Amino acid sequence: MTTNTKNKIKVGVVGGTGYTGVELLRLLVMHPMAELRLVTSRSEAGLPVADMFPNLRGHTDIAFTVPDSTALAECDLVFFATPNGTAMTLVPELVAAGCRVIDLAADFRLKDSALWQQWYGMAHSCVDMLAEAVYGMPEINRAAIATARVVANPGCYPTAVTLGFLPLIENALVDDQHLIADAKSGVSGAGRGANVPTLFAEAAENFKPYGVEGHRHLPEIRQTLALSAGHAVGLTFVPHLTPMIRGIEASLYAVLKQSNVDLHALYTERYVNEMFVDVLPAGVTPETRSVRGSNICRISVFQPQQADTVVVSAVIDNLVKGAAGQAIHNMNIMFSLAETTGLQQVAMLP
Amino acid sequence: MTTNTKNKIKVGVVGGTGYTGVELLRLLVMHPMAELRLVTSRSEAGLPVADMFPNLRGHTDIAFTVPDSTALAECDLVFFATPNGTAMTLVPELVAAGCRVIDLAADFRLKDSALWQQWYGMAHSCVDMLAEAVYGMPEINRAAIATARVVANPGCYPTAVTLGFLPLIENALVDDQHLIADAKSGVSGAGRGANVPTLFAEAAENFKPYGVEGHRHLPEIRQTLALSAGHAVGLTFVPHLTPMIRGIEASLYAVLKQSNVDLHALYTERYVNEMFVDVLPAGVTPETRSVRGSNICRISVFQPQQADTVVVSAVIDNLVKGAAGQAIHNMNIMFSLAETTGLQQVAMLP
Amino acid sequence: MTTNTKNKIKVGVVGGTGYTGVELLRLLVMHPMAELRLVTSRSEAGLPVADMFPNLRGHTDIAFTVPDSTALAECDLVFFATPNGTAMTLVPELVAAGCRVIDLAADFRLKDSALWQQWYGMAHSCVDMLAEAVYGMPEINRAAIATARVVANPGCYPTAVTLGFLPLIENALVDDQHLIADAKSGVSGAGRGANVPTLFAEAAENFKPYGVEGHRHLPEIRQTLALSAGHAVGLTFVPHLTPMIRGIEASLYAVLKQSNVDLHALYTERYVNEMFVDVLPAGVTPETRSVRGSNICRISVFQPQQADTVVVSAVIDNLVKGAAGQAIHNMNIMFSLAETTGLQQVAMLP
Amino acid sequence: MTTNTKNKIKVGVVGGTGYTGVELLRLLVMHPMAELRLVTSRSEAGLPVADMFPNLRGHTDIAFTVPDSTALAECDLVFFATPNGTAMTLVPELVAAGCRVIDLAADFRLKDSALWQQWYGMAHSCVDMLAEAVYGMPEINRAAIATARVVANPGCYPTAVTLGFLPLIENALVDDQHLIADAKSGVSGAGRGANVPTLFAEAAENFKPYGVEGHRHLPEIRQTLALSAGHAVGLTFVPHLTPMIRGIEASLYAVLKQSNVDLHALYTERYVNEMFVDVLPAGVTPETRSVRGSNICRISVFQPQQADTVVVSAVIDNLVKGAAGQAIHNMNIMFSLAETTGLQQVAMLP
Repeated sequence: MTTNTKNKIKVGVVGGTGYTGVELLRLLVMHPMAELRLVTSRSEAGLPVADMFPNLRGHTDIAFTVPDSTALAECDLVFFATPNGTAMTLVPELVAAGCRVIDLAADFRLKDSALWQQWYGMAHSCVDMLAEAVYGMPEINRAAIATARVVANPGCYPTAVTLGFLPLIENALVDDQHLIADAKSGVSGAGRGANVPTLFAEAAENFKPYGVEGHRHLPEIRQTLALSAGHAVGLTFVPHLTPMIRGIEASLYAVLKQSNVDLHALYTERYVNEMFVDVLPAGVTPETRSVRGSNICRISVFQPQQADTVVVSAVIDNLVKGAAGQAIHNMNIMFSLAETTGLQQVAMLP
Repeated sequence: MTTNTKNKIKVGVVGGTGYTGVELLRLLVMHPMAELRLVTSRSEAGLPVADMFPNLRGHTDIAFTVPDSTALAECDLVFFATPNGTAMTLVPELVAAGCRVIDLAADFRLKDSALWQQWYGMAHSCVDMLAEAVYGMPEINRAAIATARVVANPGCYPTAVTLGFLPLIENALVDDQHLIADAKSGVSGAGRGANVPTLFAEAAENFKPYGVEGHRHLPEIRQTLALSAGHAVGLTFVPHLTPMIRGIEASLYAVLKQSNVDLHALYTERYVNEMFVDVLPAGVTPETRSVRGSNICRISVFQPQQADTVVVSAVIDNLVKGAAGQAIHNMNIMFSLAETTGLQQVAMLP
Repeated sequence: MTTNTKNKIKVGVVGGTGYTGVELLRLLVMHPMAELRLVTSRSEAGLPVADMFPNLRGHTDIAFTVPDSTALAECDLVFFATPNGTAMTLVPELVAAGCRVIDLAADFRLKDSALWQQWYGMAHSCVDMLAEAVYGMPEINRAAIATARVVANPGCYPTAVTLGFLPLIENALVDDQHLIADAKSGVSGAGRGANVPTLFAEAAENFKPYGVEGHRHLPEIRQTLALSAGHAVGLTFVPHLTPMIRGIEASLYAVLKQSNVDLHALYTERYVNEMFVDVLPAGVTPETRSVRGSNICRISVFQPQQADTVVVSAVIDNLVKGAAGQAIHNMNIMFSLAETTGLQQVAMLP
Repeated sequence: MTTNTKNKIKVGVVGGTGYTGVELLRLLVMHPMAELRLVTSRSEAGLPVADMFPNLRGHTDIAFTVPDSTALAECDLVFFATPNGTAMTLVPELVAAGCRVIDLAADFRLKDSALWQQWYGMAHSCVDMLAEAVYGMPEINRAAIATARVVANPGCYPTAVTLGFLPLIENALVDDQHLIADAKSGVSGAGRGANVPTLFAEAAENFKPYGVEGHRHLPEIRQTLALSAGHAVGLTFVPHLTPMIRGIEASLYAVLKQSNVDLHALYTERYVNEMFVDVLPAGVTPETRSVRGSNICRISVFQPQQADTVVVSAVIDNLVKGAAGQAIHNMNIMFSLAETTGLQQVAMLP
């Protein structure tokens, strides 16, 4: 394309070889206001990105380069699509150089470094920035994101679970000490690393829970819901692996403290101005394919048999709204673009 | 095979054209003590069964025949693998003729005919037999099954959910007014009827809840758990469709009324003598493929972070333990065979 | 969007309830120069399109309407995404009214009405237009498409097979009496009709040939290749069903009549100016996911062990390049737009 | 089971951690005449086999042991389910000790050690045994298998392709210098090693050819067909990866040298006495699911439009007839058991 690049955001991507990375590249190469300057990968340096990801053939000629903080510092914005623990080692230098950063990994998601160390198994090397970093969920932190230097892009499960619970918690409508989140993810959520459990012949025609004793996204969800509730919440979170590539569905359960709440109206009003949250008509259930490839979170809320248990179902594409799309949304906010810029893809159905 | 058929059980199958039917046939043609006498289908009469289901080529020469109560009455046992509402019209005559019956549909599952009519949308035509019919879950009704004339084979979801909750309910360990069952089924559970929502291009790469407002298996589960509890229970049951052919996983949640219960020991002891319920070692989660094609239900129980919420996961093959396999198990009990006869298939993995 | 619609192409879609239809809508709602005026469906009249296809929620408010030739005649362009045999009954009237037409079904693909009747099992009711109708494969008929009143959009298999064979046939390099096309399609190619063989539980974990004795796309491919060769060709075409939603791969085999042809150079040069045909680097094999959701056909050519058999592999997304995308491409050519307008989607990987 | 083990075959399995291994174990634990004595794995020594493969829970208590030639030598029969190049280092010692061996890898498949080195990239360390080793395809080598000390179990693709071509080649009916084999395999054929290309998110919703330039099974197929033809044959073999766990379909193409051959009769007669080859009725096409989990090869033969090209389609389960099942078949022959012993599993459908 011959678009003038004068006013475009100069963008760098650190670590573009995983699924979050390639999805970010898919969105960036089509984004009218982003100029992709460099994509780093120590192991793949020199390889054209489109040789690894053939869907990008014809859309970019860029090749992976060795991470180089000088080159990165020339960007307006650097995305980290790296394993946990990488961003925290590079962010201080980049921020000092005037770069803004969106980390798609978990380094800046938890405010409590001790909690981070407990769940991620390593000491946090950039504790000073935890307070400043903004949790990049636009639906709750829009203003702070706009001016943030460091944005912690939310995890995939936390995106679906938090958006699903939020109206209930904000309005103190449920027993928030016994929240249940039964979440199911497509296999791409496990990443592009070579592992036996995510082989096709292991994961196809198979459904299983995992991490029942404790998953890293549990403290992240609890942190956000606690901020919303004003106190700690009790949450049981059970993730499951489902045999599809993309998509998360979270079925949420809570006991209502009062009856006669119009739950559908509550949800509709909460998200009426959110362009990426779609509350479905009453009685309609969401399905993951309705958001496949798009940045939408679709939500339904039910009160079966008018009993005192509320059931919420929220679906997202884990790689878009749950990762790269939400990151682009954050970029749009940070750089004062229309929030939907480059994010109006229609989900692919079938 | 040249096995002597003198002492074999003469078996008829009414309605063998669905997935429950073909699975029953798969098990029956290999069962050493069953002699398959006839398989009926009004629409397919004359067609060799193996022409419809090529996996049976070489295992049976039988052709579908028009349902004929005289021929059926010559059987020792008649399985109904028909749509709901069919068995109840034929069972009285067969029972009067001395046949025993296992109904794989729902006609005899609910004791309350008004409740049945409410959920199944038609009047029950065989109310007299509801009291006598035995709910065919061997783990709770073994003795009654042995002498039953009519066995109501449990639904697929109820099998997984009930076996998963039973030890907690029997011992009154949880708040049984707020039970949560989040269940996921492979697409074969929706049957072999031609419907758009179960087309490959609709159901693949897709995950969704359905029937949130109320599913027919809800009253069935409630009935069994209430009998176990001694009083009505409160249950929220949300089924989901997952993109695989076979398998059900039920994740169950309840709030414990007391702490310091050794849940793993509780489950292990409850099922120690059950050959088709396998309580996994502590900390191991089940997966549906571990039971694919077999009659096993595998169960794990967890108490995440030692909080007061118990999490149980139970997996079955919906067509075996959730239908045809459990039916054969019931047959074995009814005819005083070793319970595992013809049911020792090893699950197919991968 | 507030885009000025003054210069947009007024578009109507007849029959938007199938997979070809919804894919066409996905592309049209994002096309910057198309204004979707109406979508007809006799059976679904009144239903908002986005209620049937939730991926379109937020992208269009249009509802299905009863087909009405007056309303259709006000369009600049009408797409037919109907079953075979429908377009031919409406096209004469629309063309007379000044509409231009792209038929995504087969009504105008074969020039020989007797052959059409033989393969499609009904008499052709619009024989007069067969000669005028342009076979809408831009890579061979660009100029004629530009001025066509009626464009016959190619079938999915013919698109992949023809593009794959074309350089060999055009240059008379192979024995064109013994061409072999072994093609594999995802299940969406069978349409959105409710049929047992395309149920998830039938088509998943299964691979099979079908239509070996003769498939409707055979005469269509033969017609195009014969035009290119200047004489009738001999082609064996065997389609297969593969357990995925989207994608066609065609492996093509032919015996070379001469050695020492640089096949890779031949293909590269043939398609160097084609924006939607991508000849891969020598030695690289294509995969269907590299084109999923995009309008690209990727092709490789091999001469294994330097023997005299050439092997070509071509992949497309059957619903895009094999249907709706190619139709949009034709629209762009017919209305003098840049050919890639609205067709630059990056394939979704993973 | 309390079966008397006195007359059972004492069996050892070297390398039981791959898919071929676990499938062999699935069949062996149910085989009435085999006594599984040991399963070796250097890396997993000490681990109960059923901890790795939960489908085996309740069927065996055996744990992996370090390979130990003394213990192995006490077996009547040792299966190698190891990577290529392992069996050849251990077989001489075992044979010397009186053991018989079935190698499921490729070590003894090619008679020409130079060819083996060319395709497998290592020198052959047991060349002396190549002449003696019997290619374990019962349909052509039954007598030799019965007395063999070393059986080379055929590859998965060669099983389907060879059985499909055999009647044509044996009767010299086709141009055997231009044979085409277009074969498609489920992902389990790639093994249980952790590799990116066989991850679920890479292999699902994707179809691709691979190894077009040359696959290791090519010389194996050529060797067998050449023996049958009496001279070298020309074969183009293109394997493809299809998104399912199990199954191979091979579509075979050849030009007939004479017309008026009753191909269906030819195939039926050739395999009339083969219990594991099922020639389908004329006009019926095979599908992989009809053999999933069973040891059957189903075959159809067509002559589309009565032209001079014959099309054969053959399907197998790559892990059963294409590996472990054929190995058990060989064992049955070697030990004078009924050939179907332990191999009468009905394919799992759906």
